[in-house]
Amino acid sequence: MNRRDVLKGIGSGAVLSGIAPQSYGLAAAEQQTNFTAWELVAPGIWKSTIGRPEANSPVRSRRIAPDLDGLGKLVRVNTAPLEGPTGSVTSRGVELQLKLAPGELMYGFGLQMLSFQQQNKKRTIRVNADPKVDSGDSHAPVPFYVTTHGYGVLVDTFRHATFYCGEIHARPVEPKTSHTQEINSPQTVRERQGPGPVMVEVPRAAGVDVYLFAGPQMRQAVQRYNLFAGGGVLPPEWGLGFWYRAEMHLDAQQVLALAKSLRQDDIPCDVLGLEPGWQSHAYSCTFAWDKQRFPDPAGFVKAAQQLGYHVNLWEHAFTDPASPIFPELVPYSGNFGVWNGLVPDFPGEPARRIFGGYHGRELVDIGISGFKLDECDNSDFTNGWSFPDNSSFPSGVDGEVMHGEFGLRYQDTILDQFKQRGQSTYGLVRSSHALATPYPFVLYSDLYDHREFIRALVNSGFSGLLWCPEVRDARDEEDLIRRLQSVIFSPLAMVNAWYIRNPPWMQIDRDKNNQDQFSEGWEHLRDRCREIISWRMRLLPYLQAAFAEYEESGMPPFRALVMDYPNDPMIQDVDDEYMMGDRLLIAPLFAGEPERKVVLPEGEWQDFWTGAVVSGRTQTIPAAMNAIPVFIKAGSLMPWADVAPHAQSPEARRITVRVYGDGDIRWSSPTKVGGLRLRWDSLTGRGNSAQSSAKVRRFEIASWQKIG
Amino acid sequence: MNRRDVLKGIGSGAVLSGIAPQSYGLAAAEQQTNFTAWELVAPGIWKSTIGRPEANSPVRSRRIAPDLDGLGKLVRVNTAPLEGPTGSVTSRGVELQLKLAPGELMYGFGLQMLSFQQQNKKRTIRVNADPKVDSGDSHAPVPFYVTTHGYGVLVDTFRHATFYCGEIHARPVEPKTSHTQEINSPQTVRERQGPGPVMVEVPRAAGVDVYLFAGPQMRQAVQRYNLFAGGGVLPPEWGLGFWYRAEMHLDAQQVLALAKSLRQDDIPCDVLGLEPGWQSHAYSCTFAWDKQRFPDPAGFVKAAQQLGYHVNLWEHAFTDPASPIFPELVPYSGNFGVWNGLVPDFPGEPARRIFGGYHGRELVDIGISGFKLDECDNSDFTNGWSFPDNSSFPSGVDGEVMHGEFGLRYQDTILDQFKQRGQSTYGLVRSSHALATPYPFVLYSDLYDHREFIRALVNSGFSGLLWCPEVRDARDEEDLIRRLQSVIFSPLAMVNAWYIRNPPWMQIDRDKNNQDQFSEGWEHLRDRCREIISWRMRLLPYLQAAFAEYEESGMPPFRALVMDYPNDPMIQDVDDEYMMGDRLLIAPLFAGEPERKVVLPEGEWQDFWTGAVVSGRTQTIPAAMNAIPVFIKAGSLMPWADVAPHAQSPEARRITVRVYGDGDIRWSSPTKVGGLRLRWDSLTGRGNSAQSSAKVRRFEIASWQKIG
Repeated sequence: MNRRDVLKGIGSGAVLSGIAPQSYGLAAAEQQTNFTAWELVAPGIWKSTIGRPEANSPVRSRRIAPDLDGLGKLVRVNTAPLEGPTGSVTSRGVELQLKLAPGELMYGFGLQMLSFQQQNKKRTIRVNADPKVDSGDSHAPVPFYVTTHGYGVLVDTFRHATFYCGEIHARPVEPKTSHTQEINSPQTVRERQGPGPVMVEVPRAAGVDVYLFAGPQMRQAVQRYNLFAGGGVLPPEWGLGFWYRAEMHLDAQQVLALAKSLRQDDIPCDVLGLEPGWQSHAYSCTFAWDKQRFPDPAGFVKAAQQLGYHVNLWEHAFTDPASPIFPELVPYSGNFGVWNGLVPDFPGEPARRIFGGYHGRELVDIGISGFKLDECDNSDFTNGWSFPDNSSFPSGVDGEVMHGEFGLRYQDTILDQFKQRGQSTYGLVRSSHALATPYPFVLYSDLYDHREFIRALVNSGFSGLLWCPEVRDARDEEDLIRRLQSVIFSPLAMVNAWYIRNPPWMQIDRDKNNQDQFSEGWEHLRDRCREIISWRMRLLPYLQAAFAEYEESGMPPFRALVMDYPNDPMIQDVDDEYMMGDRLLIAPLFAGEPERKVVLPEGEWQDFWTGAVVSGRTQTIPAAMNAIPVFIKAGSLMPWADVAPHAQSPEARRITVRVYGDGDIRWSSPTKVGGLRLRWDSLTGRGNSAQSSAKVRRFEIASWQKIG
Repeated sequence: MNRRDVLKGIGSGAVLSGIAPQSYGLAAAEQQTNFTAWELVAPGIWKSTIGRPEANSPVRSRRIAPDLDGLGKLVRVNTAPLEGPTGSVTSRGVELQLKLAPGELMYGFGLQMLSFQQQNKKRTIRVNADPKVDSGDSHAPVPFYVTTHGYGVLVDTFRHATFYCGEIHARPVEPKTSHTQEINSPQTVRERQGPGPVMVEVPRAAGVDVYLFAGPQMRQAVQRYNLFAGGGVLPPEWGLGFWYRAEMHLDAQQVLALAKSLRQDDIPCDVLGLEPGWQSHAYSCTFAWDKQRFPDPAGFVKAAQQLGYHVNLWEHAFTDPASPIFPELVPYSGNFGVWNGLVPDFPGEPARRIFGGYHGRELVDIGISGFKLDECDNSDFTNGWSFPDNSSFPSGVDGEVMHGEFGLRYQDTILDQFKQRGQSTYGLVRSSHALATPYPFVLYSDLYDHREFIRALVNSGFSGLLWCPEVRDARDEEDLIRRLQSVIFSPLAMVNAWYIRNPPWMQIDRDKNNQDQFSEGWEHLRDRCREIISWRMRLLPYLQAAFAEYEESGMPPFRALVMDYPNDPMIQDVDDEYMMGDRLLIAPLFAGEPERKVVLPEGEWQDFWTGAVVSGRTQTIPAAMNAIPVFIKAGSLMPWADVAPHAQSPEARRITVRVYGDGDIRWSSPTKVGGLRLRWDSLTGRGNSAQSSAKVRRFEIASWQKIG
C-alpha cells in the first residue's frame, strides 16, 4: 500500500507535516451502527469504527504524524490477527467486545503501578495522580493492551473507558455446575467458567475507532504502536546524564553554589532543576521570575551553562491572574479554576500559541533547556486538585476528555517552541496518555513506593511511556542507595531534592538537612553515591543506542521481560525485572531485603559486573550494597564510557568495549553493539571508532576489556 | 396542606397502599430546562426538578409510602432553608450547584467507612463492596447529605453521582493573590479561596429531582428524611437478641448440636444463621436445600424453634440454572450472568413475584424468619463480582442504575413475602441506598477493620441505614472482646462464625478451631463473652424503645454525636463515639490501645456502669477488659432487663429500673424512659409496669436500683 492509502485510513495528508490539524479523519464519514470490518490503515495496523467518533481522541487530535517509513520496515503481516470488535452505540455510550482465548494474558494500559498482568481484571482508564487502588487509574493511563497472542488493541478515546478483561460473562442458559458436597467459592465458580471476552465501555461517546496492531509477537505489536504514534524519542545526550533538582527556596546564588559544589565533589550532573520558588506568586503560576530570588534570569542561566549545566523549570499550567498571559488566555480557558488560576484550553491552537509563545520568548530564548510540567493530572483525594469532569472548554471538549488530553497537549505546547527553534529538549510531565511515544517528556509522580516505582517502569514500555523513579528522600542509607541504583537504570536519572537544601547523601533526615546539620562521615555516603551516579555516565553510549533503536524501530528501551519472552510461564508475572536496551537485564534491590530472587529468560546470561556465567533459570542473589543484580546476554559487547562531569565533556565519548565471553554476539550483527555500530578487528577486540546508528554521534574506543 | 396535596408533589395516591406503582410522579410532566422553584411536597420538604427525571430513582420507584402522619408531627418550617439548585442538562447528564456557606460542615452520603465530615471532599455515590479508598464508594452509598446549618439535600438518583463538596471554584477573573517570599502550598491557596458550592454531576440523566429537608436542626432534617422514606424500622424483639451464624459445612444435626451447646453454656441466642452449605450447588444459588446436609428442612426449622431459635438463611440473588425458578426467571433477568447465575430484574414485578413467591412458599412457610442477602453490591477488585454497568434489564434500567437499586428491590422482594403473611422479619443485606429507612435489614460487610466498622456505625444514622459491625475472627482475645463489646451496642448483635466450626471463644486460631483444638482454659474466655452477650439481653427494652422512637419520629437509634450537638466544634469531628437511643453515649475500645479519649457533649453525664458523675468535656479512659466506656445523661432512668436465653423468654420482659442521680430526667417527660412509658411512684423509684410507646409490649418492673 502506498503512503496515500495509508494516510487515508488514519487521517488527512496534513499529518505528514508533523503538525496535524486538530481534528481530521472521519469527520464527515457516515455514522455506523455496527463496527465496520477491519480496514488496513498502515502496515500491520487495522481500524474498525462504530458510530460517530469524537473529534478529540488520541488518534483524531494527534499532533505528530505516524512513522510510516519505520512501519514499512517491520515484518509484514497480511491478515488481521483478531476478529473485529462487535458492539453498539447506546444512550450510555459505546460498548464493544473483543475475543480473548483461554490462557491468553494481557499487559499494558499505561503506567500501571499496582498490577502487571491484566487478564481477569477490570480496568478504568482514568487520569489520577493518586492511583491508590488497582482499578486501572494512573496519571498516565492508556486504552491500549497487548497480549501473549501477539497483537495489540487501542480503543481510541480520552474518556474514562472501562475494560472488563475477560471477567464478565453472558447470562447462562443451561445447567453447568453439578452438585458437590464441596462448597465452591466465587473464585472457583469463575475459574470453571473460563475467560469471557474483553468488553469495553466508552462512556458518553457516540462512536469510537478501534485499532489493531499485529505482531506476530508482542514486541512487534508494541513497536507498531510506537511507530504509529510517531516513533520513539531520542533524547539529547545531556538529557541522559544525571539530573538534580534544587530545594525550592534557594536563590540564584545558592543554586549556583550548589552547582559548583557538585562539580567540586566530582558528582556528574547535566541538569539543574528549579522548583516553585523561581516564580513569583508560587504556588500559583505566573511563569514570571521571582525577582528577589532571581534578579537576573538570563545571567543565572548563562552562569549555569558555563558550569556545564542545563536548566529545567518546574511549573503547572493553572495560570494565576497575576501572570502576564492571564488576560489574553481568559477567552481560551475552561469554566472552572484551579488554585485561583485558569485552565488553558490546550487542545485549541490559541491557548497553545499564547501560553507556548510566552514560554518561548521569555524562557526558551534565554537558554532554558526544558520544563517539568506538574499537576496536569487529577485526583479524587486531594481536594480541588483539578477541574471537574463536567468542565467545559472553548475547544468543545469537556473536563473528562480534557483530563485525558491535557498532558499530551501541554507537552505539545512546550515542545512546539523547541521545534520552532530547531532545539531539542528533554523534560518531565505528570500526565500522559495514548500515542505519547514521540514526546521527549518523562513521567514522574508524587507517590514514592519503591516497588511500585519499579513496576511502573516495567509496565511503561507496553504503552510508549517513559518513567522516572526519582529519588527524593530515603528512610535510611540503604534505601537511598537502592533508589539511586534503580534510577540510574531508568530513562531519566534524577535526584529531586525540592524539599531538602543539601544533597540527601549529606543528611538523610529532612529537618536536619534543612538546618545544614550533616551526618557524621557523610563523605563516605557521598562517595558511594558518586560511584553509582558514575554508572550513568558510563552507560551513556549504550543508552543512546537503546533510544536510537526506539526512534528507529519503536523498540522500547525499557521493557518487561515478557515483551521479549511472551510464551515463558516463568516470565509472565515478573514485574520487578526489566530489559534495558537489547542485552541488559536489571533486577533492582529494595531496602530491607537481604536477598532477591531473579528469574532469567531462556538463553545464556552473564553477570554484568563480573562476567561470571550464570547457570539456572532462577537465581537467589544476596543483597550487596555496592551494586544491584544486572545480567547481560552471554557473548555481548558492551560500550562503557569514561566518567564525564557532564555529557558534553569529551570523556562521555571515550569508551571501553566490555567483551563478555567470546564477544560473538549471536542474536545480531557482530558489528552492532547495543545499536551502536562498531568497527572491530578481532574476537578479543581491537577497534578504534564507533557511531550510533540513528544520529551521527562519534565515539572514540579507548580500550577493549574482557570481562570475567 | 392536606394529604392529597402532599402526595401530588411526590407521587400518586397509590403510594398510600404501601406498594407504589413502579413508576409514578412526574412521568408526564413538562421537561424543564432549568430547575423549578422549590415546591413544598410534604411538611418541611421541598422539591425542585430539572429536565425529565428517570423512572427508576430512589423516590420515583419507591415501594414504601412516606409517613405523612409522622411528618405532620415534626416542628413546622414554612420557608425553604436553602436557595434552590441551579444547573443544566447537558449531553453528559445533569449538573447542579447548591450553596455552601463558610464554616458549614457536611455529613452523610450513606455508609461511609473512611471519613466522617465531608465538606471539601469529592464523593462519588457508587455501590462498591470494597470501598478501599475514601472516594465516596460504599456498599450502601446514599446521595443525601445534611449540614450543620440544619437541612438535608437528596439528589434523587441511583446513578454514580459525583458530589464536589465545596472544593471546586469558578475561573478567577482578577488577581487575588499577592506576592510573598513564602511559597504557598496548593492547600494554602485553596484555604484562602474558601469553600465553593456543592456541585453535583448526575451522569447520563436527562433530568433529576432534588429534595430539600428542613430542620431547623440537623437532627430534624434527618428525621424528616427518615419519615419521608416511610419511617424507621421497629424490629421484632427476637431480632434485637443475639445472633450466631454457624460454619457453612455443618449439617442439620451439627447445627442443632451447636444450638444446644449454646443453651447449655448459658449463651443467650435468638437467631441461628445458616451459610452457603444449606443450599445445593453453593456457591451458585439454587435456593433449594442440600438434601444431604439438610434432609428434612421443615423438621430442622421446627427443632430449632423448639430450642427458642429463629433461623436465618444466607443467599445471593444470582440464580443458578439448576434452581427450580431459573427457567421462569430467564425472561426477567439481565443480559449478563454472575458466577454462572442469572441476575433477576428485581425492579420489575415479575422477577420479584417469581423469586419472592418461591421464597415464601418454600422457605417462609416452613418457618424461616429471615434472610441474609449477600453479594448484591459490586466491586472493582474482585474480578467478575457482579454485572457490568452497561448491562441491560427487561425493566429498562441499565447496570449502573441497577447497582443502586438492586439491594433495595431485593429487600422488597423478600419483605413482601413476610408482609403478605402478616409476619415481621429482621435480616441482613449487603447493599442499600436512599430511602432504605423502613426496611428491616441491617447492612454488613466482608471488610473487617474495627475502627472503620465503628465509623460506619456512626455515619449510618445520617442516611436511614442500620449497620452490623459483626464479629468473625479476631487477632487475639482482646480483639475478640473489643469487637464483641462493640457489636452489642449496635442494631444487630452477631457472631458470624461461617468459617469456624466452634465459637471463637473456644479457639481464636482459625485452623485449630476447625480441628476442634480448643484453647487451654477457654471456658474463662467463654464466661467473659457470655457476660458481654448478656448486656444485649439487658438492653432489649431500651433498644426496643429506641427503635420505637425511630418508627414514630424518624430519630435514628444509632447516630453521630454531631447530630444532637451540631454547633459544638469539639464534637464535629468525633467519628468513634455515638448515641444509642436518647441517653446513652457509647465509646468503643479498640484492641491494642491502652486508653482512649472520650469527648462528651455539653450537659451532665454519668458513667453508665458506676453512676459516677463525670466532670469535664474530655476524658481519657484507661482500657479495662470488662467493659467499654458508656455514659448516660445525668438524671436518667434506664430499663435493664433480666438476662433471658432468648427474647421470647419471660425474663426479657422483667426489668430493673436503673436510676441515675435523682432520676429526674430533665429533657423529656418524667414518665418516659428511653421512649418506654413507665408508671412510677417516687423519685427513688417504685413502679410496677411499663409499655413501649409504639407497640403494646408490656414489661414487668422487678426492681428499682440507684446507680452510683
